[in-house]
Amino acid sequence: MKRILLLGAGRSASSLIAYLLQNAVSENWQLTIGDISVTHLHVLLEPYSYANAITFDVHDETQRAEEVANADLVISLLPAVFHIIVAKECLAQEKNLITASYVTPEFLELHQEAQDKSLTILMESGLDPGIDHMSAMQIVRHIKAEGGKLTSFKSFTGGLVAPESDTNPWRYKFTWNPRNVVLAGQGTAKYIKNGAYKYIPYHKLFQRTDEFYVEGYGHFEGYANRDSLSYREPYGLLDIPTMLRGTLRRPGYCEAWNVFVQLGLTDDSYTLDSSESMTYRSYLQAFLPPATDGQSMEECLSLYLGIDPDGEVVQKLAWLGLFEDSPVELAGATPAQVLEKILKEKWTLSPGDKDMIVMQHLFEYELDGEKREITSSLVAIGDDEVQTAMAKTVGLPVGILAKLMLQDRISHRGVVIPIYPELYEPVLEELKEFGIDFVEQERSLVS
Amino acid sequence: MKRILLLGAGRSASSLIAYLLQNAVSENWQLTIGDISVTHLHVLLEPYSYANAITFDVHDETQRAEEVANADLVISLLPAVFHIIVAKECLAQEKNLITASYVTPEFLELHQEAQDKSLTILMESGLDPGIDHMSAMQIVRHIKAEGGKLTSFKSFTGGLVAPESDTNPWRYKFTWNPRNVVLAGQGTAKYIKNGAYKYIPYHKLFQRTDEFYVEGYGHFEGYANRDSLSYREPYGLLDIPTMLRGTLRRPGYCEAWNVFVQLGLTDDSYTLDSSESMTYRSYLQAFLPPATDGQSMEECLSLYLGIDPDGEVVQKLAWLGLFEDSPVELAGATPAQVLEKILKEKWTLSPGDKDMIVMQHLFEYELDGEKREITSSLVAIGDDEVQTAMAKTVGLPVGILAKLMLQDRISHRGVVIPIYPELYEPVLEELKEFGIDFVEQERSLVS
Repeated sequence: MKRILLLGAGRSASSLIAYLLQNAVSENWQLTIGDISVTHLHVLLEPYSYANAITFDVHDETQRAEEVANADLVISLLPAVFHIIVAKECLAQEKNLITASYVTPEFLELHQEAQDKSLTILMESGLDPGIDHMSAMQIVRHIKAEGGKLTSFKSFTGGLVAPESDTNPWRYKFTWNPRNVVLAGQGTAKYIKNGAYKYIPYHKLFQRTDEFYVEGYGHFEGYANRDSLSYREPYGLLDIPTMLRGTLRRPGYCEAWNVFVQLGLTDDSYTLDSSESMTYRSYLQAFLPPATDGQSMEECLSLYLGIDPDGEVVQKLAWLGLFEDSPVELAGATPAQVLEKILKEKWTLSPGDKDMIVMQHLFEYELDGEKREITSSLVAIGDDEVQTAMAKTVGLPVGILAKLMLQDRISHRGVVIPIYPELYEPVLEELKEFGIDFVEQERSLVS
Repeated sequence: MKRILLLGAGRSASSLIAYLLQNAVSENWQLTIGDISVTHLHVLLEPYSYANAITFDVHDETQRAEEVANADLVISLLPAVFHIIVAKECLAQEKNLITASYVTPEFLELHQEAQDKSLTILMESGLDPGIDHMSAMQIVRHIKAEGGKLTSFKSFTGGLVAPESDTNPWRYKFTWNPRNVVLAGQGTAKYIKNGAYKYIPYHKLFQRTDEFYVEGYGHFEGYANRDSLSYREPYGLLDIPTMLRGTLRRPGYCEAWNVFVQLGLTDDSYTLDSSESMTYRSYLQAFLPPATDGQSMEECLSLYLGIDPDGEVVQKLAWLGLFEDSPVELAGATPAQVLEKILKEKWTLSPGDKDMIVMQHLFEYELDGEKREITSSLVAIGDDEVQTAMAKTVGLPVGILAKLMLQDRISHRGVVIPIYPELYEPVLEELKEFGIDFVEQERSLVS
């Protein structure tokens, strides 16, 4: 029997839990799920003798040591800041760990110790990061094996709503942490294009979008992620002339979101002087220049930002209620916190709503003097507002990797991301059984 | 005999040193000037038996304790970060201190101890902050004494070039720390207008300028300072509906500077990936979207930022050489550091160049049912590139306050800024002898 300790039973854990339960009997697993609140799990787990839920506080040293000691493998879906605490416990007790979060500098410091102890801390194993690495590396490896030379790699991912739930003018609803959506893109986006480094400051990010098209799902637009450069090394693409990673939205979203950025509404660095007495309208007004006589707020805004007062952008803002005198009812809030509250009112998934994950890789390469292009696209649709596409695409690869690890099929040690065939080949293969499958198109680029 | 210890003998200290030397005999002062490098002072001080210069390292505890022990009054014109070290030494040894820098939260923590020991740490005693407080409070007090009710107070200051040295298209040269000029305005500007708080994010700051006019000196434009709100309390204007502080430039400067802000050239938070091999042109290019076929860099820039490709803004950039392939020659530099280097090439004062300080206060108030306005303007011109207007307006008030302090004419204790008549009346009076004098205009506002 192998014992799995899963820490974190939030929204994104549903598909992982289902996967672990499905495989528990055949794999002879005992599953313990720990989180601050697990009452919602008791009914779910009741039929399963090999699964239980416990109230778990990552800051409780005694409990942490005890539960990790009892496990053969630890999986953490806790908020990303807590992973390092779990990782140190796992190292001390010589247990393997899987997370879906980014490798941070703190984790790199654990690499040597993990290697010395022959342990694997497998990270970036969800969707983005996760499936993006796996699916990209499969193609990169294929092109290189053929003798091709990669000249450009663009990779964009978005958590969106399925066509049947695409019911508001923004064509967007929250399928992920709303706070992260509000703060997305802050900092400077860095990428490389035709051999030259490019830098996009945050206040220009939502104006510099690229267009994307996915057969059967239509058009998308994408803005650059902060860091498109750091994966050149692990991907073995240090000399690639063009590399860009980014986030997908439906067309029109970025132009409207840019209004928030331009006004300063996404700023989380200071608190407003009187947010408790603000209305949506006065909140917006605080970021506008003083209106001239007889000028409406919509006119003032449009003139300030150079947008059409009767256009779609202003309509999107109006749909959110930003011109209305609804009370904000938040004290000591940052501009970003007020915006998040306003958006949550409108962008929450309704019962039955389905989300949609879209990922597209665009490769350009040269083979035997010919310029070629590969487009690889993934679309995953959620079952409902609980078994979301987000939960599936984050949780299933983690679950499959857990299985591989407990089957001793992972040989890499240290802090590892899934860029090796022994990891991505079986994961991508098994994901197809869940309908998570890339559609690939290859063509010659005639210049 | 009273002993003055002046720490910091940099560019802005020249007028203060001259003032202290001029008054030393009549006031019976002994002056010691300490700085990391004081070789330039030996010739200057040679004729004066009552003045000497010493190599001084603020981090040398023994020397710091010894020199402060020998002094009756300490003046610090060191870089602002070092003031707190000096202040703690002064407190420990029960010495008074004067600086021209802002009161920081660290200083507020010293207030009680200074009061308990009956000491005065007099700060914000230069130009801005300094003369701005003094001249504003004189008028605020006058209006209140008359029974007037202040409804609006705007105060703008700029360190510029004198008309005879106003010889480049930017109408600007560095008369102050270039790094601070490059980073000026970062953060969010906060002010209050007609009772409503207003917030301007950095990327909009240089578009939201006000116009100013000073008789005999023409037109100026001003952008808001980060904090216009914190002086409402010390000025006794907690309920004033409109209050705005800002920085003056010549018309056209802000629109052109906004190009740097929009592109991201003033960012100091990350280093460029290959600044050592950049040219001015490739540096600029790194912040532009990829050009379309046949598009010139000037066209690409103009289209990106919505400016006229043949207009004055592009001409200002061209004058700086930004479109040329001159090497940057800076390794591991931030965008802001590269920009600072480029600007220093062009914006350094030439021998004989004169700088100019401009300050303007605009008050609106109601008296006996009548709306009235007072405009109070100061223009100070430097003698040359050493005895600058900046050095005079920063150093002279500090010197006069030092005299008042050694004459025991300052009764306020603790951490103090010059907002009290016992401080500002004699300072403003004596400044007139140096040609530093405000021109006041008062008029009725007919609505």
